[in-house]
Formats: sequence, structure tokens, C-alpha cells
Amino acid sequence: MKYKLTLAYDGTRYGGWQAQTNTTAIQTLIEQSLKTALRQNTPLIGASRTDAGVHALAQVAHFSFEKRIDPLRLRASLNGLLPPDIRIREIEPVDIDFHARYSALSKEYHYHLHLDRVINPFKRLYTTPVYHPVDIPFLTKAAQNFIGTHNFTSFTNEAHQDSTARHPIRTISRLDVVLEPGGVRLEFEGNGFLYKMVRNITGTLLDITAGKISLSDLPKIFAEKDRKKAGKTAPAQGLFLIKIRYEKFNIN
Amino acid sequence: MKYKLTLAYDGTRYGGWQAQTNTTAIQTLIEQSLKTALRQNTPLIGASRTDAGVHALAQVAHFSFEKRIDPLRLRASLNGLLPPDIRIREIEPVDIDFHARYSALSKEYHYHLHLDRVINPFKRLYTTPVYHPVDIPFLTKAAQNFIGTHNFTSFTNEAHQDSTARHPIRTISRLDVVLEPGGVRLEFEGNGFLYKMVRNITGTLLDITAGKISLSDLPKIFAEKDRKKAGKTAPAQGLFLIKIRYEKFNIN
Repeated sequence: MKYKLTLAYDGTRYGGWQAQTNTTAIQTLIEQSLKTALRQNTPLIGASRTDAGVHALAQVAHFSFEKRIDPLRLRASLNGLLPPDIRIREIEPVDIDFHARYSALSKEYHYHLHLDRVINPFKRLYTTPVYHPVDIPFLTKAAQNFIGTHNFTSFTNEAHQDSTARHPIRTISRLDVVLEPGGVRLEFEGNGFLYKMVRNITGTLLDITAGKISLSDLPKIFAEKDRKKAGKTAPAQGLFLIKIRYEKFNIN
Repeated sequence: MKYKLTLAYDGTRYGGWQAQTNTTAIQTLIEQSLKTALRQNTPLIGASRTDAGVHALAQVAHFSFEKRIDPLRLRASLNGLLPPDIRIREIEPVDIDFHARYSALSKEYHYHLHLDRVINPFKRLYTTPVYHPVDIPFLTKAAQNFIGTHNFTSFTNEAHQDSTARHPIRTISRLDVVLEPGGVRLEFEGNGFLYKMVRNITGTLLDITAGKISLSDLPKIFAEKDRKKAGKTAPAQGLFLIKIRYEKFNIN
């Protein structure tokens, strides 16, 4: 049997979804709680390897287990074992062909920018303060340049030998700038994102609104396929994995 | 010159607005930053002595200083000195008669209850999870019994010798139950609240929805003027000081 897990986490305290040196990985904590609850090693495959400090409202993962599971009971056990900043939202049996990463049709990320002079203390860990004035219509116009199918090599920190870096073509179907109290959020939707791509596009957009990069240079930056030509990497704390869309894999 | 301060804080790490033993008081931290910025001892009078763990979106305080102050510059200095979970939102010169506590016309508090099975990890420090099923129309009906002018002695932990406990009559003008994602919030508005009164009313309402206290016993609980007759004290983390209303005291 294959099971799909939907989970939310506050990434502040963690070294990301996957194990990195000297940090606690979210995946590891969930695998440990699965081992305790199911009494056997249960490897977990996550849809998105969110980086250290990145948050998730609906990360998706899958695991296999030979027996039938009561999803509500297992959810209660796992949430009892996990720290309160990681919560299992849903457990569903899925078709044997389901794969959290490869079956994903699209992913949605939001990046929150705080533009007010004084930051809201309740958002201090969940938004990135911007210290220069931002012209929001100009930001909206600049963001449109990233929509569509592009080679995003200039916007990923991935090493060239990595498999995803050898396939750096991605399609962004939507990049909206949405007003929210205290600032704006950038809503990214696409068929997949390279390592740090959302943060690098956000950082480049911030550099464009600050006048450090000219909007008219963007085509050249794309064409040069060189990370050093694009803008800075925006901090992890403003980034949320919001939703991953799949075809229907549920077993009814 | 008298100055009015409006401030927001995440109360999680603090021992409340005022100094208590072995805890850090929010008032003390702001007085220390005022002393550094203004280079003299500057006592601060707060409108509401929020308890340990209680949050504020718009606490109000005042202080006196003989010289003219540039409010934006002082705000930037104080926010530079304070930890990021305490933020000065506004500084305004006010009439010499202004008093943060005594000039207040009304105060608004919100208490957040999380009713879903799985708590949102981003709200874990800002809402109180409820583990029994809550009938929201019944909760709304029960809440109406607290509206109006009453002797709230049964709903305060204040010692009888305290000055406010000798004047335990308060008026609640509004107590709305408002749906929000994952649960409800209780919106309290009134001319003043006794020590722990919002948390004791909330705890009593929770005991009523759990069937531990009968709604028809409420008149008797009010009449007995005995804290032990009412329900439990709801935890601090769900409580926010939202707004304090004043007549116009600004100097134009």
C-alpha cells in the first residue's frame, strides 16, 4: 500500500526538508515518528526539498507500508510524536503509481515581502523586510518577465553536474504580485522550480526595484545562463510552499 | 511634553507588561531603550498590564520628556534597540492631560480558539486548541450573557484588597464570536477589564460548551461573587490586546 502525507511546518528551527550537516531535517523527524508508530523503517519521499528556514503549508510526501493503516489514528500518533511546529494534516491511501515528486503537475510558492517601515512582530519570522521604497506597479510589470517557459540557469544555485541543472527549462504559469497587510506577496506557480529559483527570482526583482539591475537587462541575464549575472538570493524566511497539484491518485 | 506610544509585541517570551520576579517585563525593556535613546530615566505608564504570554497589536503607553522629540527618529532608535518581537508602531505628542490608562474610553481584546483536529503550526503560539466539540451557535448564545454592566468578581483573580477588586463593576459592550480559519475568535470590547477577566470568561464559556457548567447557572455564578464558582482560566497564548480607544488628545 502507498500513502500520501500532506504536512505543514514552520521551517524556522530546521535545516530544511532533507538532512544537511549539523542540522535537524524535517524528513528525518517524520521518518523517526513513522518508525515509532509503524514499528519498522519507513523511508519517506518528499515532493519538494525545501531549504533551511523555508516554510510549508502543504508539503507532500509518500511512503509504502504493506498493511492497511487507519489514517486518522496514524495522523494522531505522528502528531503526538512530532514537535508542534511540524503537523501532519492528512494521510490518504493512494494508487501504487503515485510518486510525491514525479506525479506533481504543478507547485505553488508564495514569497512575502514586508514593505512597511515597522515590521509586524508576529510576521518577523515569516516575511522579508525590504528597506528601499518599492514601486508596486513596476514590480508587477517586472515580474511578468519571468512568466512562460525559460532556461532558468541564471536563477538557480544548482551545480552544473546536478541532474536538474542539466534540465534547466521550467515553465512559470503565474507570478502575481498580491497586496497584503504590511506589504505584498509574490505568488509563483509552475511545473517545477530549480534549487533556490524562487528566492533568486525574488532577489532579482528586489534588485530591479532598488535600481541595482535594469529591467531591460533581463533578457541578457536569461541568455547568459550565469548565476552571477542575476540578483541576490532572497532570505529563506519569506518563502512558503503553498500547494502541490496532482492528478487524482486517491483510492476510492 | 507628553508622548503617546503605540506598540505591538509577541508576548511568548515575556513575563508580561510589568516586571514580575525572574521574568523579563516588556515595560522594562522599553524603559531601558528610552533611557539609551533620550539619555535619562523615562518612566513609562502602560494602558493595560497584559499578563505573561499575552500578545498585543496596539498596546498604548505614555511618557513625559521636557524637550521636543522627532517621533520618526525616536521610533527608529527604539526599534533598533528593542528585540524584534517588540515593535514601536507610533509615537505622537499628546496633550498634557493624556493618561494611557485613565484616558482610555474602551479596550478591545480578541481570544483565539483553534477548533480543528490538527493545529496550524504557524498559529501554535497564538491560539488555544480546544479538544472537545464546540457548538458555535450555542457558544454565541452563551457569550451574550456577559454583555452589559455586571459585577465581574466571579471572573477576576484579583485579590479583594486590590483597588480594582473593590470596584468590580465593568461594562462589556460587545462580545462577538467570529469564525476564522481553523476556529473562532471571541471579540471583547468594554470600558475596562479586571485582572484575567477575559481569560476567565473565555474559560467559563469553554466549560459551558463542554457541559461542565450549565448555561442556566450563570446568573447564580455572577451573584455569588466567588472566583471558584466560575470556570477555568483560559491560557494566555490565545489572548491579544487589539485596540484602546481614546478621545482625541493629539496636538495638531
